[in-house]
Amino acid sequence: MYPVQKKRWRKRYPCPRGKGTFIEEGENMSMQLAIMGYGNLGHGVELAARQNPDMTLTGIYTSRPPETVRSVTGAPVYAAAEVYRHAAKIDVLVLCGGSAKDLPHMTPTYAGAFHVVDSFDTHAAIAEHFEKTDAAARAGDHLALISAGWDPGLLSLARMYAEAVLPAGKTYTFWGPGVSQGHSDAVRRIPGVRDAREYTLPQPEVFRLAQKGGTPPDTPAALHRRVCYVVPEPGADTGEIARAIRTMPDYFAGYQTEIVFLNEEKFRKEHTRLPHEGIVLRYGTTGCENENKSSFSCQLKLSSNPEFTGSVLVACARAVHRMRSRGCRGCITMADVAPADLSPLSSGRLRAAWL
Amino acid sequence: MYPVQKKRWRKRYPCPRGKGTFIEEGENMSMQLAIMGYGNLGHGVELAARQNPDMTLTGIYTSRPPETVRSVTGAPVYAAAEVYRHAAKIDVLVLCGGSAKDLPHMTPTYAGAFHVVDSFDTHAAIAEHFEKTDAAARAGDHLALISAGWDPGLLSLARMYAEAVLPAGKTYTFWGPGVSQGHSDAVRRIPGVRDAREYTLPQPEVFRLAQKGGTPPDTPAALHRRVCYVVPEPGADTGEIARAIRTMPDYFAGYQTEIVFLNEEKFRKEHTRLPHEGIVLRYGTTGCENENKSSFSCQLKLSSNPEFTGSVLVACARAVHRMRSRGCRGCITMADVAPADLSPLSSGRLRAAWL
Repeated sequence: MYPVQKKRWRKRYPCPRGKGTFIEEGENMSMQLAIMGYGNLGHGVELAARQNPDMTLTGIYTSRPPETVRSVTGAPVYAAAEVYRHAAKIDVLVLCGGSAKDLPHMTPTYAGAFHVVDSFDTHAAIAEHFEKTDAAARAGDHLALISAGWDPGLLSLARMYAEAVLPAGKTYTFWGPGVSQGHSDAVRRIPGVRDAREYTLPQPEVFRLAQKGGTPPDTPAALHRRVCYVVPEPGADTGEIARAIRTMPDYFAGYQTEIVFLNEEKFRKEHTRLPHEGIVLRYGTTGCENENKSSFSCQLKLSSNPEFTGSVLVACARAVHRMRSRGCRGCITMADVAPADLSPLSSGRLRAAWL
Repeated sequence: MYPVQKKRWRKRYPCPRGKGTFIEEGENMSMQLAIMGYGNLGHGVELAARQNPDMTLTGIYTSRPPETVRSVTGAPVYAAAEVYRHAAKIDVLVLCGGSAKDLPHMTPTYAGAFHVVDSFDTHAAIAEHFEKTDAAARAGDHLALISAGWDPGLLSLARMYAEAVLPAGKTYTFWGPGVSQGHSDAVRRIPGVRDAREYTLPQPEVFRLAQKGGTPPDTPAALHRRVCYVVPEPGADTGEIARAIRTMPDYFAGYQTEIVFLNEEKFRKEHTRLPHEGIVLRYGTTGCENENKSSFSCQLKLSSNPEFTGSVLVACARAVHRMRSRGCRGCITMADVAPADLSPLSSGRLRAAWL
């Protein structure tokens, strides 16, 4: 049996905490977390939960046979269908599926029965995903937070803050160099693809121009290029795979895309890590004649994108738990969450520590 | 008579808007703003209100004889005492006094009768200011947002977000090079000082070390030095002024402080502008053994600190107006405000535009 008691769990799987943290154990309400889907992101959420003393991870739910899966921290692994039976020990269910095929149905489904958090990141489809999830969550009287992570997520918030405080100006977002998991995932689902990794890179001249306060075109396709490393199945039509990639709407259509086919051995050797970076830049003007310039920038550099994203999802799960305790329901995004609700600190401690 | 109709006002005092903005006039509820105190910050708020189509500035209130004051945009100027008579046309009153002597009494006083926003920035005294303002606002059934601006303010939020999503890590905040208005104000209030300007500068070696992910000591006094340019009154005891500066608690005591006395002519020539900068850096670790590193940074570069701060106060006034319409009361800070409430966009438009 899995030790639900927080202390025993923590004692068995201690996690070194960094210095300089202000978190005090037991300051706020503790909560029980569960993970649905145990890929890279699920692992990230599992490890992030361990860094937060107010969290207890009560279970990991997988579509694979659970007896074949071992968790990193010793948390128990169950078959996905069991999650409904365990509802009493799940305050928030963190949905760790892919945006291309899993989350569009997973999130509305589970939002009817649990308070949930997801990382849906297909920018063009967020409105539809929001509507479906909102309807399901309201019908089941639950709270769902979608599209959490770093972009959409923290960098979205940077754009909102920057635009709100500098209404006259222009915003740029550059991603990379780094691996887009959503795009890699989308390529892997093309028939004939055994494995794939997509790297997003800023167009260097455009990045330099924007950093100097210039105003180059600001569409994602103008700011970035994409490089795909693809392992084809034996005998697959690589020309057809390349065509499927280049024409994929929302993901690759319209982008400068380079495609490199390689064998599995080389792929395993050279493409194991999942780093990513992103920066939001806004240049705005103030004054009688717009004579004064201000710039706002927010940058993230991640050596493990899924671990960082997992860490953001865990903070969002805390906010969902808090906001739910105040009666919130339906679908929200990080834009609807006050920063204080993401923190384990009390409001008074936050004012003392960070204001 | 001042033209209260938004359109006439806007037509008379048009403001060029930057390209690439997503704000649509009339998308959200419009509001009436007033300014209490008409120094540098009051001017900044006045100009910022003009950049936000949902705002109408209905009056500027000053402790000087109003007939001696002309506003930049043509907004009417009244004696401070008149503000109570005009309460019906003030949704939010923006308090533009100094933190050292004005706001500690101004904010609790006006929070009893108006929804207010202030920029109180004496970090060490925020808890006390919060308590007093909260009591006054609750007694009068009003909502007060204190300590808005960029630090405390946007950079405080950067620290909160960074700590919430990277609980194992270390945070650094560097201010400058730039003019601290609060510190300049504090020096000007010393007997024998005619005028003064304080520059805050990062200690360059410490800044470089922190930027590389090193862990130098993180107290503000270890990270910064201060330089004061002071114009003494004729016959003033400069030694006494220097002593008063160096020993001033919360402001200079404990800091490496350089003091330069100069004549008024030179001061007027060389110290007219009010630029400032600030950056929050957080380095955190994730993973099984804390083997992966993430960095989060948020940087502001402002060629006019009071105009940018004014712009933040205006966005906060919008949030106060929105939150009040949902029944909020008492004292809050930017940590309690969801990013969506700072924006003039609707939630749906925000998701479409920025998420």
